Amino acid sequence: MTRLAVCPGSFDPVTYGHLDIIERGATIFDQLIVAVFDNHSKSPLFSVEEKVSLLKQSTEHLPNVTIDTSKGLLIDYARKHNADAILRGLRAVSDFEYELQITSMNRKLDEDIETFFMMTNNQYSFLSSSIVKEVAKYKGDVSDLVPPLVAEALRSKF
Amino acid sequence: MTRLAVCPGSFDPVTYGHLDIIERGATIFDQLIVAVFDNHSKSPLFSVEEKVSLLKQSTEHLPNVTIDTSKGLLIDYARKHNADAILRGLRAVSDFEYELQITSMNRKLDEDIETFFMMTNNQYSFLSSSIVKEVAKYKGDVSDLVPPLVAEALRSKF
Amino acid sequence: MTRLAVCPGSFDPVTYGHLDIIERGATIFDQLIVAVFDNHSKSPLFSVEEKVSLLKQSTEHLPNVTIDTSKGLLIDYARKHNADAILRGLRAVSDFEYELQITSMNRKLDEDIETFFMMTNNQYSFLSSSIVKEVAKYKGDVSDLVPPLVAEALRSKF
Amino acid sequence: MTRLAVCPGSFDPVTYGHLDIIERGATIFDQLIVAVFDNHSKSPLFSVEEKVSLLKQSTEHLPNVTIDTSKGLLIDYARKHNADAILRGLRAVSDFEYELQITSMNRKLDEDIETFFMMTNNQYSFLSSSIVKEVAKYKGDVSDLVPPLVAEALRSKF
Amino acid sequence: MTRLAVCPGSFDPVTYGHLDIIERGATIFDQLIVAVFDNHSKSPLFSVEEKVSLLKQSTEHLPNVTIDTSKGLLIDYARKHNADAILRGLRAVSDFEYELQITSMNRKLDEDIETFFMMTNNQYSFLSSSIVKEVAKYKGDVSDLVPPLVAEALRSKF
Amino acid sequence: MTRLAVCPGSFDPVTYGHLDIIERGATIFDQLIVAVFDNHSKSPLFSVEEKVSLLKQSTEHLPNVTIDTSKGLLIDYARKHNADAILRGLRAVSDFEYELQITSMNRKLDEDIETFFMMTNNQYSFLSSSIVKEVAKYKGDVSDLVPPLVAEALRSKF
Repeated sequence: MTRLAVCPGSFDPVTYGHLDIIERGATIFDQLIVAVFDNHSKSPLFSVEEKVSLLKQSTEHLPNVTIDTSKGLLIDYARKHNADAILRGLRAVSDFEYELQITSMNRKLDEDIETFFMMTNNQYSFLSSSIVKEVAKYKGDVSDLVPPLVAEALRSKF
Repeated sequence: MTRLAVCPGSFDPVTYGHLDIIERGATIFDQLIVAVFDNHSKSPLFSVEEKVSLLKQSTEHLPNVTIDTSKGLLIDYARKHNADAILRGLRAVSDFEYELQITSMNRKLDEDIETFFMMTNNQYSFLSSSIVKEVAKYKGDVSDLVPPLVAEALRSKF
Repeated sequence: MTRLAVCPGSFDPVTYGHLDIIERGATIFDQLIVAVFDNHSKSPLFSVEEKVSLLKQSTEHLPNVTIDTSKGLLIDYARKHNADAILRGLRAVSDFEYELQITSMNRKLDEDIETFFMMTNNQYSFLSSSIVKEVAKYKGDVSDLVPPLVAEALRSKF
Repeated sequence: MTRLAVCPGSFDPVTYGHLDIIERGATIFDQLIVAVFDNHSKSPLFSVEEKVSLLKQSTEHLPNVTIDTSKGLLIDYARKHNADAILRGLRAVSDFEYELQITSMNRKLDEDIETFFMMTNNQYSFLSSSIVKEVAKYKGDVSDLVPPLVAEALRSKF
Repeated sequence: MTRLAVCPGSFDPVTYGHLDIIERGATIFDQLIVAVFDNHSKSPLFSVEEKVSLLKQSTEHLPNVTIDTSKGLLIDYARKHNADAILRGLRAVSDFEYELQITSMNRKLDEDIETFFMMTNNQYSFLSSSIVKEVAKYKGDVSDLVPPLVAEALRSKF
Repeated sequence: MTRLAVCPGSFDPVTYGHLDIIERGATIFDQLIVAVFDNHSKSPLFSVEEKVSLLKQSTEHLPNVTIDTSKGLLIDYARKHNADAILRGLRAVSDFEYELQITSMNRKLDEDIETFFMMTNNQYSFLSSSIVKEVAKYKGDVSDLVPPLVAEALRSKF
């Protein structure tokens, strides 16, 4: 079987926590589409084009990973691309509750597309795009949190 | 004893999850007032009048349920209507924490009005007004989530 | 309508936390049966007869509360007594998860019997029978945790 | 790529909740080994042989699922069978915390074996082997909770 | 050893819950700096000056407590003041998850500054600045929730 | 001020997670008593003497840490030693709930002894004595989880 998964997110910007999930997911699924969804973001720091560019550069060592973007419902996107699965990272309890809600909804909308979860490495369990932006805003050191090119992009934003 | 309960919410719009709680609550309390509170809602999709109208049509088979609206504190509303209890639905952990906070506060403000919780049917445990609006916005199918008249109202909004 | 609720538990022994729920529940339901279930308890400190006796003495000021005991399934007991509802106290997240599981199961077994939850008063949110037994075992002061007659019964056990 | 996953558990006995995860997992992984681990179980109702037999009969419609048993560490078992992944079902917050702990430990022991989680169908989110045994013990109806052959096996135990 | 701790927050406005943590923290640390951070607050009710003034008046009986304000990163502030520790109050699960995230981040940024948590007194476990503002807005009684001078300040705001 | 804290636990056996809390606690408190409480342990692997010995050897580089043992109530022990504080490590939500319960109880028994919490380093957030014993029992590698002398002690037990 050839297995395709979609890994959705807002990636504003991509962190080492996201990359941990993407890299490990890419060892299990034959193809992994990382899809930037921009409908939820109220006032993103990076444009969709910037987000995609940072993701592309950060994943160019992963041949079976492609980066894409969408403005619709995740389940419609997954269906259109014949995805077998949706892949999500889990960090904490609040994540868990929210993900349970989304997963149940997606299963209601299309019960043939499974959602799989991987737990973020302990090392990155505290890491989120917003905390990275907060640290970068006040000139804190983000070099352990994001790839060098993302650190550079953050510097030019603030 | 005749028992009156108030079931508060923002109902933007009413879902099958809300109706599940309302219907089951109406079998225990002699009278149930479903009260639309509009003070919290930042940018609601439906006006208070629309919310009330959708609730009225969705509950017209329940003779001991009335629909009302308020702009003040829940506990003042409950007191003014001589309510014996406040009835709330519970879905998940985050609900639970928030409800605990509100309940403790309300008990501090008036310890004679009890708060009762019912757990939402498993089938609707993922359901919220915001997830319904999200699905409707992208033309997803909401017919299992809200009554037909609400689905129709959502269609005309988007 | 006349409303009958069953308030189940192991009550080993009854605490001020239990009594808080029983007293407040008794203001809403016309009749409240407090039912001692002894099937779960591995090695209870008090016998069923002792538990019932402590409960009876602690609730004799509540005319619409009766004390009973059962060895079967809660839902069978509720059905046999034509109960309209099951009443449970909620304290913390772990309670909540467990209660959700039991409630879902009971609804599956009989969807006509509703489960209602009341939140324990903040003052007693830390209180459990096992913590009371632990304190009593080491001669700690339990007079703020249980009625005088229960404190006396604990003293004679250790 | 050919992907092999191990789905571990105590299965005392297998429920529709377990089967939901097994069936959906079998659509993503090329091969799925359901492994009965008996080291944790204090006083199981069914013997390992009985558990395996019930699992085999309940999954005989799934050609890529095999049933096995082990007494050692999960990670050693997964390594010995060249598993790419461990597959686990998630139900509630308490599950989640425990699974996070186990997953972190397993990652420490072998970082090449990924753990994937699937959320149990809402319909079965309350279901556990112990609650099934509790209901069966008091002659409650378990036909919606376990396959007919498991219901039969439970009847002959009590 | 002389021990200095920083107790950060937005204090919009200070409540009896905050004061409970400040008073008890002041018995353990030789010096306690309560620092008003205003970077997160979207639309605060009180200005930084007002928040500081209310805090100063509410803590004037505590000789080892000083009030300050900052716009930067907490960890930079703590470092600049040679703090040994950061002191935080914990109320509920959602608090806990968020605090874990912040603490991990701060430890990554400077592992020599420890974060200590104290649990808010049960009596105030439901209390938050936002719930106080909500009650005050609708002319509810806040005299059990905040010191008299804060109650007065709230009255003049609405 | 001279500050003395008690850090209680069952330490069956001590892990790097415990030592992380002990080492960081010892930088804040002038004196730290690590107290082995053996009343809860059902069937411990190590005797109290062995636990104390492993703790002593693992903390001999910390001059202000002493190891002790008690069979009574924590709060009585803390009072008898004129402790200013109780120090506990926090890992996950289930820890948190349990600790909240114990802390509230202890505050009721003696409101002058504060309980402080420190969050376990992410690296050890999955670590518990029982998971260490489980791994050691099946000859897994525990060298990243416990000090060498504890690993040796575990080997001689199994």
